[in-house]
Amino acid sequence: MAETLGSMKRTHMSGTLRTNNIDEEVVLMGWVQKRRNLGGLLFVDLRDRSGIAQIIFDKDISEEAFLKADKLRGEYVIGVKGVVKTRESINKNMLTGDIEIFASELKIFSEAQTPPIYIEDEDEVSENLRLKYRYLDLRKPKMQKNLMFRHKMAKITRDFLDENGFVETETPMLGKPTPEGARDYLVPSRVNPGKFYALPQSPQLFKQLLMASGMDRYFQIVKCFRDEDLRADRQPEFTQIDIEMSFVDIEDVLSMNERLLKKIFKEMMNIDIQLPLQRMPYSEAMERYGSDKPDVRFGFELTGLNELVENCGFKVFSDTIKNGGDVRGINIKGHGDDYSRKKIGKLEDYVKTYGAKGLAWIKITNEGPTSPIAKFFSDEEMNKIIERFEAKEGDLILIVADRPNVVFDALGHLRVEIAKQLDLLNKNDYKLLWVTDFPLFEYDEEEKRYVAKHHPFTSPKEEDLHLLETEPHKVCAKAYDIVLNGVEIGGGSIRIHNSELQQKMFKALGLSEEEAWEKFGYLLEAFKYGTPPHGGIAYGLDRFVMLLTGNDSIREVIAFPKTQNASSPMTEDPSTVDKKQLEELHIELALEK
Amino acid sequence: MAETLGSMKRTHMSGTLRTNNIDEEVVLMGWVQKRRNLGGLLFVDLRDRSGIAQIIFDKDISEEAFLKADKLRGEYVIGVKGVVKTRESINKNMLTGDIEIFASELKIFSEAQTPPIYIEDEDEVSENLRLKYRYLDLRKPKMQKNLMFRHKMAKITRDFLDENGFVETETPMLGKPTPEGARDYLVPSRVNPGKFYALPQSPQLFKQLLMASGMDRYFQIVKCFRDEDLRADRQPEFTQIDIEMSFVDIEDVLSMNERLLKKIFKEMMNIDIQLPLQRMPYSEAMERYGSDKPDVRFGFELTGLNELVENCGFKVFSDTIKNGGDVRGINIKGHGDDYSRKKIGKLEDYVKTYGAKGLAWIKITNEGPTSPIAKFFSDEEMNKIIERFEAKEGDLILIVADRPNVVFDALGHLRVEIAKQLDLLNKNDYKLLWVTDFPLFEYDEEEKRYVAKHHPFTSPKEEDLHLLETEPHKVCAKAYDIVLNGVEIGGGSIRIHNSELQQKMFKALGLSEEEAWEKFGYLLEAFKYGTPPHGGIAYGLDRFVMLLTGNDSIREVIAFPKTQNASSPMTEDPSTVDKKQLEELHIELALEK
Repeated sequence: MAETLGSMKRTHMSGTLRTNNIDEEVVLMGWVQKRRNLGGLLFVDLRDRSGIAQIIFDKDISEEAFLKADKLRGEYVIGVKGVVKTRESINKNMLTGDIEIFASELKIFSEAQTPPIYIEDEDEVSENLRLKYRYLDLRKPKMQKNLMFRHKMAKITRDFLDENGFVETETPMLGKPTPEGARDYLVPSRVNPGKFYALPQSPQLFKQLLMASGMDRYFQIVKCFRDEDLRADRQPEFTQIDIEMSFVDIEDVLSMNERLLKKIFKEMMNIDIQLPLQRMPYSEAMERYGSDKPDVRFGFELTGLNELVENCGFKVFSDTIKNGGDVRGINIKGHGDDYSRKKIGKLEDYVKTYGAKGLAWIKITNEGPTSPIAKFFSDEEMNKIIERFEAKEGDLILIVADRPNVVFDALGHLRVEIAKQLDLLNKNDYKLLWVTDFPLFEYDEEEKRYVAKHHPFTSPKEEDLHLLETEPHKVCAKAYDIVLNGVEIGGGSIRIHNSELQQKMFKALGLSEEEAWEKFGYLLEAFKYGTPPHGGIAYGLDRFVMLLTGNDSIREVIAFPKTQNASSPMTEDPSTVDKKQLEELHIELALEK
Repeated sequence: MAETLGSMKRTHMSGTLRTNNIDEEVVLMGWVQKRRNLGGLLFVDLRDRSGIAQIIFDKDISEEAFLKADKLRGEYVIGVKGVVKTRESINKNMLTGDIEIFASELKIFSEAQTPPIYIEDEDEVSENLRLKYRYLDLRKPKMQKNLMFRHKMAKITRDFLDENGFVETETPMLGKPTPEGARDYLVPSRVNPGKFYALPQSPQLFKQLLMASGMDRYFQIVKCFRDEDLRADRQPEFTQIDIEMSFVDIEDVLSMNERLLKKIFKEMMNIDIQLPLQRMPYSEAMERYGSDKPDVRFGFELTGLNELVENCGFKVFSDTIKNGGDVRGINIKGHGDDYSRKKIGKLEDYVKTYGAKGLAWIKITNEGPTSPIAKFFSDEEMNKIIERFEAKEGDLILIVADRPNVVFDALGHLRVEIAKQLDLLNKNDYKLLWVTDFPLFEYDEEEKRYVAKHHPFTSPKEEDLHLLETEPHKVCAKAYDIVLNGVEIGGGSIRIHNSELQQKMFKALGLSEEEAWEKFGYLLEAFKYGTPPHGGIAYGLDRFVMLLTGNDSIREVIAFPKTQNASSPMTEDPSTVDKKQLEELHIELALEK
């Protein structure tokens, strides 16, 4: 009994009707949210993307429409013609709660079986069911808002970049495999037997080549791919806002991006952020927050104790320092009473997941300091420690002694975990921060060699160039990350634009000249024909939208995401393919027996 | 000797300086186009994305800058500070020809070797060299203009669709293989051994699911992939402007798109196109132009001769008709003198490439009709033919007799070929046309079955529904193509939104119920829970931009295209990969020995 649109044309979206529409004849189209029979009248809540309007079917107005309406069930798709009237019993909880529509005509475009999930924001069903019936899940108002928010944010970003002379340029999806970095998704070539394309991990080299091309300012909102094991906030494909500019140094990139961020926060959140944004060198971020992406919405900053405890009677501390380690702690100001011994035990378990061997603590009670390690310290030593933390009655000091990296990692995560437990993280408080002056390299303990902290195309600071071959660990990079509430939402750098320097960089990373040319020869070649100084940034759009919409997973802001094992319960991909298709691609399966 | 930006900040783009900048101190940055020494002064043409400005280095202003400038060669990247002055010898051929800049400071950011291709629009080098050094090729002003045009057109399209309530929504790049249609690019899954993703040929099903999701209006400018053998205007990856709307019928989609097209032509070309656009049913397009994408900038329309010649003495004609074929011709009005017998012979060779067995001709000279087939016809018969073509002295009639499809194909291409030869195709004349009322199916002679003319999700017209199972070839589709100067730039349809009808459609296409559910089960399932009537369109962005920029190949409007064998001479992809990578993907090579 499906009906056609015929001459019926929608005049309004349901959620937009207000008292100024009263007495207008309107045509609405959408889904039946619910239907009730009250006192011989049929009440239907009609839902579309914009919201819900209440329709009334009255036998006295149209018996035909009334009889049809009597058959309506949830999720039927209908069109309704009617007149807007003042609602008798005003509903303050609905934006359209002041009006109702008396229907004169009804068309049923599509019937519906009872859906396997409810079309309500608060419906609690398994992630798997939500993804299997994603087309139903996306009918939920909050999911539609997420997608519309994402659209608007991408639009605003494009408007800003266009106004500032950036040219959106598409770069290839089918590119060259790059064994450096994360794992590539590969695509076998049919016309080039035995050869493969790779899906891009980022358009990094193409955007640099566009700068060599004189395109001056480039951007692209673009899909990127990494074949990594998935975590809650990872997807096989993700979207980057990718930006690159010529004839710039760090300050130029930062100030352009601050203006972009200001615009996004104003238009999307109605929040005025103050410029310039806070900036913090990497070393300071580590010392104060134990993290290169600190959440600066709250304190609990790290405090060093080394010179206070290097000769103390507590072997755990003094031996750690002797062996090149650190002793640092945080003061959970005013929350000592929130942590019993048992709860502190759980915090100790928590820091152990980051490799720490233990968690020492000192609680300042009204009877003075209490601590299982108090017996190892003289009163004077204990007082100095307490003084160092500026600790007062009601405070709780938590201390980790270990290798420096472990101390940073454990305390960096611990302060955030405690802030969560104490509900100190205000989702509506947005703190943006540039982290700058990253080291150019970090030492990879597994591979026993230096690897690039950002990527091999990042420029060292001019003043550190002389250290590149002798003391690479001391070289500072022209790199920067933008951090929002403890989450890195973007990062970038000024790039190398000189063939010799780029080759030195590859050498420092352990690539032979031959390997460097085989993998990146076209970049080294391009640098020979006149390339401008350039730099840029890339934002993770999914994560950025997730934070601004107050969601906990990027799956909430992606229309059709994959599960943890990189599959789709709806379309059932990936899937098997015909042998003939594989033959055409010159490959065959090699499955373990 | 590469210098850093230091405190130097660009103030202007070179191509934008005019007489109103005179006496301003400016800083420009860009590439050296050329350098000359004239009368003790050094003249440097400085090029950036916006154009070229002339810089003068005078020893008396700055000896240091002069001596540095003396070392400049083509494609060096520099920054120049100087004062704008009226030019002594005005150059009317340059937009900045009224001014010149007297330099006080020069920085050299990057030296350059002599480039293997010239940075000039008219440089004629092989396609392969252009692609190998694409970053140099893209420095040519015309290539930069192409990319900027493309950016602006995408921007305008997004602005229009956003203003009209369309939400840009990203759909997956990693999807389900679909053995129907063109060949997929496959991506082996690492975490799901033996299984594969496919890169999308289009987001067709996802956009329909978004309509089932109540998103109401969707669009996306998106990469799509087809692993087909490449022609001049095909690439492995191409870009689509993809649009879908709910609660619409054909007229709604057409009028929305006409407004979009009007805006694009106004903003990009400064051309006012008249709405509504011309519309032509498929059958009329074939009868009049022998093509479902007719170029209507010129005449030479097809004329049928069947009933005039079915009993004539010329066996070739009468036998063709007896065997179910057609006899049709075109009149090349006023151009008889342009075609000698030899030239007509070449036209015959041309139609033979489209399967025609020959080309009959009648030339009307001042002595009456001349034709090799005149002897087979009475004067009366010949006069009737001439009358039918409304042929006059100076005209040339060209006739093909063959199977109907061959006649259409041969004459359809012949009229365009002749228009090209006679230089009748004005590139600045843009004729847009909707072709409508396509057949739903076409018969595939090879596979001996009906296949979908557009795709299996296209809705039949309501009035033809009853023919679906009995006379499928008579069923008309709710499909439409938009044609620009004989090139299809987009196409779409109203879709099926009903599970039963969709299943009937699959059945008509020869899919068993089981196959249909295995391949498209999620769509059939979605239709059960309330799906609105919906329809849309997809434009080929590359081809559309190519036509509007007057280019002959889409490679000219793509930053980094592939060659005919789907490879990149610059990055050298596709390439071989490590055995370890293949092992991780559970595949191995199967190369012919």
